[in-house]
Amino acid sequence: MNTEKRVQKLREVMDAKGIDVSVIFNFENQYYFSGLKAIIYSRPIVLLVDKEKTALIIPSLEEEHAKAKANVDELYVYHEVKSKTGQGGSYTEHFDTLLSRYPKGTVIGAEFASFSVKLEQIAHQHGAELVSIDQEIVDMRAVKDEEEMAMIAESGRLVSLALKHSLENAAAGMSEIEMDQFGTRALFTEVAERHPNATLDYFVMSPSGVERTNMPHVFSNTRQLEEQDIIIHSRQVGLNGYRAECERTFFIGRPTDKQKDAFKVAVEAQAAALDFIKVGVTAKEVNEVARKVIEKAGLEPYVNHRTGHGIGIGLHEEPSLRYDNNLVLKPGMAFCVEPGIYIPEVGGFRHSDTVILKENGTELITEYPSDLESLVFDGVKQGV
Amino acid sequence: MNTEKRVQKLREVMDAKGIDVSVIFNFENQYYFSGLKAIIYSRPIVLLVDKEKTALIIPSLEEEHAKAKANVDELYVYHEVKSKTGQGGSYTEHFDTLLSRYPKGTVIGAEFASFSVKLEQIAHQHGAELVSIDQEIVDMRAVKDEEEMAMIAESGRLVSLALKHSLENAAAGMSEIEMDQFGTRALFTEVAERHPNATLDYFVMSPSGVERTNMPHVFSNTRQLEEQDIIIHSRQVGLNGYRAECERTFFIGRPTDKQKDAFKVAVEAQAAALDFIKVGVTAKEVNEVARKVIEKAGLEPYVNHRTGHGIGIGLHEEPSLRYDNNLVLKPGMAFCVEPGIYIPEVGGFRHSDTVILKENGTELITEYPSDLESLVFDGVKQGV
Repeated sequence: MNTEKRVQKLREVMDAKGIDVSVIFNFENQYYFSGLKAIIYSRPIVLLVDKEKTALIIPSLEEEHAKAKANVDELYVYHEVKSKTGQGGSYTEHFDTLLSRYPKGTVIGAEFASFSVKLEQIAHQHGAELVSIDQEIVDMRAVKDEEEMAMIAESGRLVSLALKHSLENAAAGMSEIEMDQFGTRALFTEVAERHPNATLDYFVMSPSGVERTNMPHVFSNTRQLEEQDIIIHSRQVGLNGYRAECERTFFIGRPTDKQKDAFKVAVEAQAAALDFIKVGVTAKEVNEVARKVIEKAGLEPYVNHRTGHGIGIGLHEEPSLRYDNNLVLKPGMAFCVEPGIYIPEVGGFRHSDTVILKENGTELITEYPSDLESLVFDGVKQGV
Repeated sequence: MNTEKRVQKLREVMDAKGIDVSVIFNFENQYYFSGLKAIIYSRPIVLLVDKEKTALIIPSLEEEHAKAKANVDELYVYHEVKSKTGQGGSYTEHFDTLLSRYPKGTVIGAEFASFSVKLEQIAHQHGAELVSIDQEIVDMRAVKDEEEMAMIAESGRLVSLALKHSLENAAAGMSEIEMDQFGTRALFTEVAERHPNATLDYFVMSPSGVERTNMPHVFSNTRQLEEQDIIIHSRQVGLNGYRAECERTFFIGRPTDKQKDAFKVAVEAQAAALDFIKVGVTAKEVNEVARKVIEKAGLEPYVNHRTGHGIGIGLHEEPSLRYDNNLVLKPGMAFCVEPGIYIPEVGGFRHSDTVILKENGTELITEYPSDLESLVFDGVKQGV
């Protein structure tokens, strides 16, 4: 990844805000600016960017990994073994040492949403001042470059494939997590064949039944799918750290009339938003297009989340397709469009697809049929 | 889970430190004190504990989930839809409102390692003062009660089962992620049968080959296992949020003499530490027992991490089995014991097992043979 270009842009922000050194603590942002993505963050990592150099504070067991993957000028390794006593025993020790190289009154750019009080105390001991760079980083990450768009598009192809395999193998008597496994296995096989030496993140949840589909975010569990069940199958795939999302609401056996009605409204709301979203419209206009379809059907009381969200390194990231977001959408932005309706004693209804906005049109990068007939299964697929 | 007892203990800490209200922002600690575990934390959650009440600030799409699972007195839901304008649009808005109920000079207990500058600014606007409760919560979580120990023990059984399935299906020509899937599938099948309505976290990574086994923490990727490969297969399972870990270093085909030697030292170091660890010894003594075995064999320069770590809700949690930790081990503590040796051009060597310390003895809750003969596979297992 071309992280130099991103660091350059961060330095322009720093110049404009009078910042001497930025301290990146959020691990998605660390990946964005350095190319290093750790598998576990129990041992903290800190990235520093000043006007000339980039430096990474890492635990010793990430040293080889960082040498191979991190595009930074300097590595500061902290150790946890006796033989390395005195060479830095913690991330805070290195942070303290690094800050001592800057004069009193140094201005630190920090992510206020994740920068900890612990790091702030060290900064204050050095007489440094903190200035927020949250919004500037959000804005940078929101507009993807060609490489990022290509990575998201390939994740879109992969997540659609996984979703298809889980849906088309679903049957009554099978648990949610067993159903998830069909798609996950297909995903792994495909990635193994097509993407040697890639990293793969994936996320899957499949709340089933009326009660559980009404909870938009729950872990798949061992509940068994039943005849006449409604299920929301939700997936994300992140190939080399860049994600896409695809979700479908589907049925085992025949839906009730109330379920059919709500399903159709959710599908129409999503279709309207997907049709509308493009470069030049505002985030809130996209939300409004979906909301109006739902309002017209009298189901607005059953909406409890925004129409969609940005996607990229984060599972959910800015910009938010929310009623109060005036942001004008730009080329390079990627969104999951997923209006949802959650009706007690009827069920939850939500499809999600991922789109990338381009100057010459909006590209839908996930695919699976959205209509009711295609989404009623019974071990073998059947008509409605 | 008996979260009331934990909240009661936190209030005793608050009394002792003159704290009026604790603000829990770390999500593992939120689970510990409230029983609510979200699947995604893109929308922040905040738990407040004062002397009389507990309150949870949650996004609207966790509302039903929180009603079902969170053991708290009050829920403050923030909304992202137009129809709920004015009822709280963000976690910071509710946080601000909640703090306004306390007088100026209120003392807030905060986790300094995770409490953000953003929340701190709001606290300061209310004239509140922050006091750290990091160590007190670490100490509470380190000593598990009977229910927690039983949950960890069951996760130990499950992780051993998953590890066995991955190891015994490994063969040259198969990718790391494909090998992982054998164990994962066995795990899911077992959980589906035995634990209806459980939640399941799992973690797996299998660096293979000399270069990748030298990186203790990397994602499994699509590298194919080769004849004569060395592999570290590493797993954690968390049933209903409580985790156990099991790891084995193994070979496809015959190891080299250097690999055999290093393997034996790693096994001996782990066996010595497992034999030694018990109630009443210090964390650093356990580390020292393993370190001495490795030092005696002349391999100390190849050690880059501590001998082990606590486990529970966290992947890695305190207490650390580290050379400078003077803590005396207590009944109810759970540890992963995993000394590692990483030799360039030879490979990485690490087994991990989980133990629970009890007054009357130390219980090993993971199991798979550790000896070289049991850990040489070639599609079908063969002798050394």
